[in-house]
Amino acid sequence: MPESQKIAVIGLGSMGYGIAKSCLRDGHQTFGSDIDLGRMRSFQEEGGLVGDLNKFVSVIDAVVVVVLNAEQTRQVLFGDEGIVQNLKTGAVVISCATVPPDFAIEMERCCAEHNVHYLDAPISGGAKKANSGDLTVMASGSLEAFQAAKPVLDATAETVFELGNTAGPGSAMKAVNQLLAGVHIATMAEALTFGMTQGVTPEKFIEVISNCAGTSWMLENRAPHIAQGDYTPHSQINIWPKDLGIVLDIAKSAQFSAPITAVALQQFVAAAGMGLGSEDDAAVAKVYARNADLKLPGEN
Amino acid sequence: MPESQKIAVIGLGSMGYGIAKSCLRDGHQTFGSDIDLGRMRSFQEEGGLVGDLNKFVSVIDAVVVVVLNAEQTRQVLFGDEGIVQNLKTGAVVISCATVPPDFAIEMERCCAEHNVHYLDAPISGGAKKANSGDLTVMASGSLEAFQAAKPVLDATAETVFELGNTAGPGSAMKAVNQLLAGVHIATMAEALTFGMTQGVTPEKFIEVISNCAGTSWMLENRAPHIAQGDYTPHSQINIWPKDLGIVLDIAKSAQFSAPITAVALQQFVAAAGMGLGSEDDAAVAKVYARNADLKLPGEN
Repeated sequence: MPESQKIAVIGLGSMGYGIAKSCLRDGHQTFGSDIDLGRMRSFQEEGGLVGDLNKFVSVIDAVVVVVLNAEQTRQVLFGDEGIVQNLKTGAVVISCATVPPDFAIEMERCCAEHNVHYLDAPISGGAKKANSGDLTVMASGSLEAFQAAKPVLDATAETVFELGNTAGPGSAMKAVNQLLAGVHIATMAEALTFGMTQGVTPEKFIEVISNCAGTSWMLENRAPHIAQGDYTPHSQINIWPKDLGIVLDIAKSAQFSAPITAVALQQFVAAAGMGLGSEDDAAVAKVYARNADLKLPGEN
Repeated sequence: MPESQKIAVIGLGSMGYGIAKSCLRDGHQTFGSDIDLGRMRSFQEEGGLVGDLNKFVSVIDAVVVVVLNAEQTRQVLFGDEGIVQNLKTGAVVISCATVPPDFAIEMERCCAEHNVHYLDAPISGGAKKANSGDLTVMASGSLEAFQAAKPVLDATAETVFELGNTAGPGSAMKAVNQLLAGVHIATMAEALTFGMTQGVTPEKFIEVISNCAGTSWMLENRAPHIAQGDYTPHSQINIWPKDLGIVLDIAKSAQFSAPITAVALQQFVAAAGMGLGSEDDAAVAKVYARNADLKLPGEN
């Protein structure tokens, strides 16, 4: 058995909840926090600690921050009730949100002022792999940050890419991955609905294309949602205006022109504008379907 | 051993040459034709028949047309020296170029007037799989066309998708595949070069992303060309303004808006404008690199 650690997971969304459960499963005392009291109650029923984090914070070994964006991450760490000031020397912040590399570097510096380590650790893999402890982590940070984070990484990740010895490279790689993932989802939707105008059914599309050079991880993962007419959100439309927006912000700062990313982003913005923000991101196909007067599976 | 057939392969480019070799390997008398005499001589040295097709045409069982586009296909079949008029009753034309579905339907009808079968049979898989007889064929046509084409399909294809009993669906599926394949190549180039602005090397990009949700078949196949600085053309830049142009023509006819495809097409047009038309299509990364003042591997 690994040594039992005291861990806090801030943000019990689809990813954070799985991470917290994986920490529990590995025998760690795990505190969970979320603005949604229902999720905290669920976590408590699974054996997690909930309540007032201030009572635990001074003994915590690792804080995993699994919130939506940079602003929320800053609030958790250094806001009015920011926890870093109360963490013990040598504790580690493991930051999982998709954020600009420069923000990660700033957070690492601010944590260091409190003698707290910071691991720039964006995650990939979806809710299912979060639940089973099989995430992919794109991590960068000091040797000390990696060492302090090891029990959490062991509990939650199948693959940890060690991308550099400071914060920044982890978030940079995550941005690269999100560029591709977002564009691939929207392109899958464009191709699937284009095929429908030519008599290619979504089922035939999946059967043939997943065996051809046009396939992608996202196509194989998301196209079945459209074929089944099931938009239960594994990952929401709303993720993409945010994440592709971060990509384009970073790109603009670097004077890098990313025209395909920009156009893909607009498809997700249109989907959000159609009121689909909380649906599964495969619902971006509905933008194309409406424009072309097509009826997707499951629609009346 | 299968019954030996008399086969003609028109167009001995990277795909056609492999198809012709695969037919020879399966024991068929195979005639090869190309405007490039060098390729005809090479094929002759491998045991192929070359010379004046008119001497053979009346006994040929199957003609495989592996030219660049619809116009060349029409020329081969029904131009001034078009061969369909001289084919025997029951022969089959196997048409492999990427063409609009409506063109395939027209060719099927014109062949039928000469009692010749037509298989709408676009191919996927690249030169390597053409050489080894392991292509993927997206085929549609009459039962008779499939039967007449069987010896060629057996010799050249690992997977034959039977997509319908008339011409059209084969070409439709190919257009869908090309949309995805073309967009994925350009997006890989956009992401790889974006990563370089953030300190992500092409090698690290391939190592990490090929294990993450952002991967695609094209990324795994083409990104190594950029990392190695090797633009030997497996598939040329010039293919994409043509193939994505066909996709957009079909889309426009169907009043289908394909914004991501349109933007990806422009990146290949820009690459051609830079004089890279004959390089490997991974060279689309050079458009991004030039715009962002980046130096790709192998550049001075």
